[in-house]
Amino acid sequence: MAALSLFLDVPLTREVNWLLDAYQEDPSPDKLGPLFLLADCQTEMGKAWVCPTVRQTLLQIASDPTLDHEYLPVLGFPEFTRAATELALGRESRAVIENRAGGVHTVGGTGAVRIGAEFLRHWYNTSSPSPIAVYIAFPQTANSGQPVLVAQVLSCFQSAPDCSIVVLHAPEETGLTPKQWEEVARVMGRKRLFPFFDIPAQGLASGDLDRDAWALRHFVAQGFELFCAQSFSKTFGLYDERVGNLIVVARDNETLVRIRSQLQKQVMGMWATPASLGARVITTVLNNPALLNKWKQSLRMLAEKIMLIREKLKEKLRILGTPGFWDHLTAQSGTRSFTGLLSSQVAFLEKHKHIYLLGSGQVSVCSINSHNLDYVAQSINEAVSSTEGRAQGLSWAEME
Amino acid sequence: MAALSLFLDVPLTREVNWLLDAYQEDPSPDKLGPLFLLADCQTEMGKAWVCPTVRQTLLQIASDPTLDHEYLPVLGFPEFTRAATELALGRESRAVIENRAGGVHTVGGTGAVRIGAEFLRHWYNTSSPSPIAVYIAFPQTANSGQPVLVAQVLSCFQSAPDCSIVVLHAPEETGLTPKQWEEVARVMGRKRLFPFFDIPAQGLASGDLDRDAWALRHFVAQGFELFCAQSFSKTFGLYDERVGNLIVVARDNETLVRIRSQLQKQVMGMWATPASLGARVITTVLNNPALLNKWKQSLRMLAEKIMLIREKLKEKLRILGTPGFWDHLTAQSGTRSFTGLLSSQVAFLEKHKHIYLLGSGQVSVCSINSHNLDYVAQSINEAVSSTEGRAQGLSWAEME
Repeated sequence: MAALSLFLDVPLTREVNWLLDAYQEDPSPDKLGPLFLLADCQTEMGKAWVCPTVRQTLLQIASDPTLDHEYLPVLGFPEFTRAATELALGRESRAVIENRAGGVHTVGGTGAVRIGAEFLRHWYNTSSPSPIAVYIAFPQTANSGQPVLVAQVLSCFQSAPDCSIVVLHAPEETGLTPKQWEEVARVMGRKRLFPFFDIPAQGLASGDLDRDAWALRHFVAQGFELFCAQSFSKTFGLYDERVGNLIVVARDNETLVRIRSQLQKQVMGMWATPASLGARVITTVLNNPALLNKWKQSLRMLAEKIMLIREKLKEKLRILGTPGFWDHLTAQSGTRSFTGLLSSQVAFLEKHKHIYLLGSGQVSVCSINSHNLDYVAQSINEAVSSTEGRAQGLSWAEME
Repeated sequence: MAALSLFLDVPLTREVNWLLDAYQEDPSPDKLGPLFLLADCQTEMGKAWVCPTVRQTLLQIASDPTLDHEYLPVLGFPEFTRAATELALGRESRAVIENRAGGVHTVGGTGAVRIGAEFLRHWYNTSSPSPIAVYIAFPQTANSGQPVLVAQVLSCFQSAPDCSIVVLHAPEETGLTPKQWEEVARVMGRKRLFPFFDIPAQGLASGDLDRDAWALRHFVAQGFELFCAQSFSKTFGLYDERVGNLIVVARDNETLVRIRSQLQKQVMGMWATPASLGARVITTVLNNPALLNKWKQSLRMLAEKIMLIREKLKEKLRILGTPGFWDHLTAQSGTRSFTGLLSSQVAFLEKHKHIYLLGSGQVSVCSINSHNLDYVAQSINEAVSSTEGRAQGLSWAEME
């Protein structure tokens, strides 16, 4: 055999994990983190929150002697995709009643985005001579939802090439009003922009499942064809079972059938069929009125807790006299907050306070609790006081 | 909104499911199937076989109150990938001892093949001006393992472009002798062909885990860098939990680290992190000597049962005087048999006997049991007697 590796040219990439690596290599006993991206909803004790009904249902399913662990169909557990799709669109949705909305059970929300993107790459607007532009709207920057910013986004959409694809990420967390969403839908309809919703935690923003789905349902009611990636990791605390759903809303049932047949082909080459257990747990809860009520109650409590943390943090920063405006902490909702900290301030926190955030200043609100709140507020205060200005994050990013 | 769908041009594809659809639409009460591709190991009662230790372990894990259901790392459950990699390569493998073999926990064997293929597409032999040829070797045709066929495969490898990629599918089921594998490795080494093993059911061919891994271990011992997709669906009867592993054997640890960092990037965009429960069950069994022994015993029993079905079917065909040679039924091993039936004979079985096989004549041996054996043998006899000749399936297929 040759003495040299075939893979000499493969570069080491730390893109994925550099922050976690930095955190893990930090020897300080005071280090706090990782307060970023994937961090999940935690209890006061710093342990990941698991929806109580989930444990009970999981145990029930695992002890079922009739469960034979055969492969699920390629598109997944049909009862799950039906229940999940109805949860997002509403049972009374015209798209549901007219049988032109359907789901694909995927490996988490990431899998739903990927499968949908692969489909669009093959089949979306194939007659267009130029590549389709993709916009990612509303990563929740410090000032999302503010009128100026919404106007900026609308003017961006207005100047976008017709038929571009727009990923509407976490619409429930943006703080946009129904009126603002109506305007977004109007502009997108006029420009024939294709909406690809990404809903990571329906119910955790306002505590109300229907309210969090308002924007999506409005687009459906306006007659849009659209995709929606749906995740159940945060809302059920079942991060490790990777349960997602790609909702397809098509013009009619026949179109839906054709689209799903092609999605099936994509799935075959990606993971063949999804894992079943997490989806079985979630389906059991969604289809059982008593369990469903308990779960809704958990969501409300969790959403209230998250809002309380936001309020406490804002109040602490006010008392400390931290420069800048911090109203966005409570104007936004959901598990993540875009603090608006500059990257130099994020670096300050990392270097001097051993607190690890993403460069964008995004923090997982759920990882702040009564034990670390004072330290976090004090550290942010020092970071902001020791540097100047506050970031005005962009509201959307254009991809190739 | 426009009255026409954006997806008018998307064709309906029945590629994936046409056989299952045909089976399901067949109104005959005698219909038998689906005896094809994904069909799993079944009990005498026609229910999918679940490894008994699996049920017990699953229940144990589901009742563990300390399990917090947090996300697994991107590359999966580390204890699982370690145990799985050692199961395939052997604990004494130089690659394991030298810390240059490692795994990526994937969504089933399909996920392992896909992640590996995506990596190779980006990083394999990037200096080559022409596209890399990919050969898929040894789908178990009726006469695989026969000297003439092995010679054909070797001559094909000899005339392949240097550095081509060869997918060695289900090596444990081919019936090739160690001597024949040595010759395959010699030719592949000379031509610098890259081996991508795909091992769907280690232990189910011979009933012995080590014996089934002989070819893979020989390549590793010869110093090859290689990939190996490993699946646990069949061997644990845990089809619906989608547990796979992509084994990477590299020249040295530093190369392994670089490759895994890039694989991590692929995973992030595909499913972010894999589901955990199935991998936890399998890891528990692999790391507990008592459970491991029970599992090995189950594998032996299942492999014996499969071989017995093969022998019975061959014997029935002999008694019926079915034209042709049927020794390959027992020369091959494992859960699938390539019967060597012509596609016209497969069509005859479907039309007249309501038995559904893949066009290649592949049958899942496990789906034959004492209740349907006579009917299957009688039907094959009629199919072969009513048409002429027997298929000489190809031993490899060239892809772009």
